Amino acid sequence: MKAGIVGYGNLGKGVKAAIRQNPDIELVGIFTRRDPKALKVKSEDVDVVNVDQAEDYISKIDVMLLCGGSATDLPVQGPKFASMFNTVDSYDNHERIPDYYEEMNRVAKENGTLSAVSIGWDPGLFSMNRMLAGAILPEGRDYTFWGSGVSQGHSDALRRIEGVKDAVQYTIPIEETIDRVRDGENPDLTASDGHRRECYVVVEDGADKARIEDEIKSMPNYFEHYETNVNFVTKKELNRDHSEMPHGGFVIRSGRTGFDKEKNQTYEFGLDLESNPEFTASVLVAYARAVNRLSKEGAAGAKTVFDIPLCYLSPKSDTELRAEML
Amino acid sequence: MKAGIVGYGNLGKGVKAAIRQNPDIELVGIFTRRDPKALKVKSEDVDVVNVDQAEDYISKIDVMLLCGGSATDLPVQGPKFASMFNTVDSYDNHERIPDYYEEMNRVAKENGTLSAVSIGWDPGLFSMNRMLAGAILPEGRDYTFWGSGVSQGHSDALRRIEGVKDAVQYTIPIEETIDRVRDGENPDLTASDGHRRECYVVVEDGADKARIEDEIKSMPNYFEHYETNVNFVTKKELNRDHSEMPHGGFVIRSGRTGFDKEKNQTYEFGLDLESNPEFTASVLVAYARAVNRLSKEGAAGAKTVFDIPLCYLSPKSDTELRAEML
Repeated sequence: MKAGIVGYGNLGKGVKAAIRQNPDIELVGIFTRRDPKALKVKSEDVDVVNVDQAEDYISKIDVMLLCGGSATDLPVQGPKFASMFNTVDSYDNHERIPDYYEEMNRVAKENGTLSAVSIGWDPGLFSMNRMLAGAILPEGRDYTFWGSGVSQGHSDALRRIEGVKDAVQYTIPIEETIDRVRDGENPDLTASDGHRRECYVVVEDGADKARIEDEIKSMPNYFEHYETNVNFVTKKELNRDHSEMPHGGFVIRSGRTGFDKEKNQTYEFGLDLESNPEFTASVLVAYARAVNRLSKEGAAGAKTVFDIPLCYLSPKSDTELRAEML
Repeated sequence: MKAGIVGYGNLGKGVKAAIRQNPDIELVGIFTRRDPKALKVKSEDVDVVNVDQAEDYISKIDVMLLCGGSATDLPVQGPKFASMFNTVDSYDNHERIPDYYEEMNRVAKENGTLSAVSIGWDPGLFSMNRMLAGAILPEGRDYTFWGSGVSQGHSDALRRIEGVKDAVQYTIPIEETIDRVRDGENPDLTASDGHRRECYVVVEDGADKARIEDEIKSMPNYFEHYETNVNFVTKKELNRDHSEMPHGGFVIRSGRTGFDKEKNQTYEFGLDLESNPEFTASVLVAYARAVNRLSKEGAAGAKTVFDIPLCYLSPKSDTELRAEML
């Protein structure tokens, strides 16, 4: 199977590294909006070309992995590439997923291509587990905890405050709350009951730290109501200690079974990731394999993690899977 | 959707309770090899009939949930019922799954029925996670830990020792080993490195406890090499404290990503079950829904958890799933 990468940021680099771990997949091209010559791509026989040349690769690439962001890139990139290629993307704007799906489904069906949308871990693996746990334990509640990990949205919000030069925000799930859920207590929780926020902030010379800390802690939606801790650090400290992108989290469903609902059953899925973009990339690559196989069987349109049988993700045959993995 | 239960032991009772939690599924009949009149079935309008009368229900039941054991019941029950009905079963003899699958696939295809085989949590949910984690993180290892929970096979082995009247054996995963796996150490483990065995044994009057304890601890395959603890208790204590059927466990895959495999990624799935048979039953019922829907779409033959898209398990429509669960 021949693959292409559209967009060469952290996710695109992760996809390149993930493809190296899958001998049945060959990376043919990297498509960028930047000057291809300016792109540092480690080693190997890979074409690095401008996105506008993608059309020349229609017969050379089986699946394009779209590695742009959900805010502005994918709403354009998705339909554009789905009109020419099978695609996989990690569209993660939860509220707009239905619209994005409909648009991708329409374009892909018109062009006889197949697109796996909103692939990754949330949306993605977490969604699968929320759905599966809910179908198995209809009387129960599910809880999603995120972290410990860097939230890009919250880090950006910190950087918009006057006097802040740079910042990183970690979302950290509160252990005691997780334990209450694991114990089957089924508590009513707001997001702020389950998570606290740890901020590392670099300020401009002479900035008013007290005012900045106050502005952070009272910021609606982002920090207000949350247990928030603000640490002022130097730019050097921030770069040294907070430039990695760890993340993870848990989906827990606690349900009751039995004639009189007398038994508690706890279902839990968790990820502990040293690199969020590299893990997301690894999920995209497995789904690219599925898209290629389903497309060769004649499937067209858009699909989500709910629609694709797991066997398509594996390089093993169905017979091998039953003998070795069941 | 109309369902039937074949075999009314712990699993069959669990299926009956689970169906009550799913308003889209109606229980039509319970089929037993015992005298139907001797069966205590709580309330409700359900036919309780002999298995030999099942044929009369061909037009009245969409899916039969086969609740017999894997050793002797399902190898006969499976193909027999697959020749008349769509079925779901929890066949769990891992070594013989490929043969069982082939037989069920052949019979179901010949008769235009659909059978989901080896459904439950292991095989079942654990298998899905082993497969999915392996496809996402090809460079890594997966580990399965079982427990804490009652192992029927090990309890039976204790009961076969001379002088033992009754016994219950708990398989308990070793926390320190789990932590090594979670930390990405990727250790080489034998089953006995990961689990210890706690035995509660009732002996006959005047039995030689020292000899029994020795016989237990040196029993090959079952207890030899394991950290094994033997507790002698009265029959009353056994009944009072050890008559529940809790179980659970973890699937953990620790893998590495990145150009130089520099990042560790940990994937974990876990169950903590107060009732093993009731949870397994809940999984069977969700897959019965999937079997009914797939069969109405024209599918026939045998399928496993690897083959069935998750959306079929949910009572929600695909549109609802995308809007609410993704």
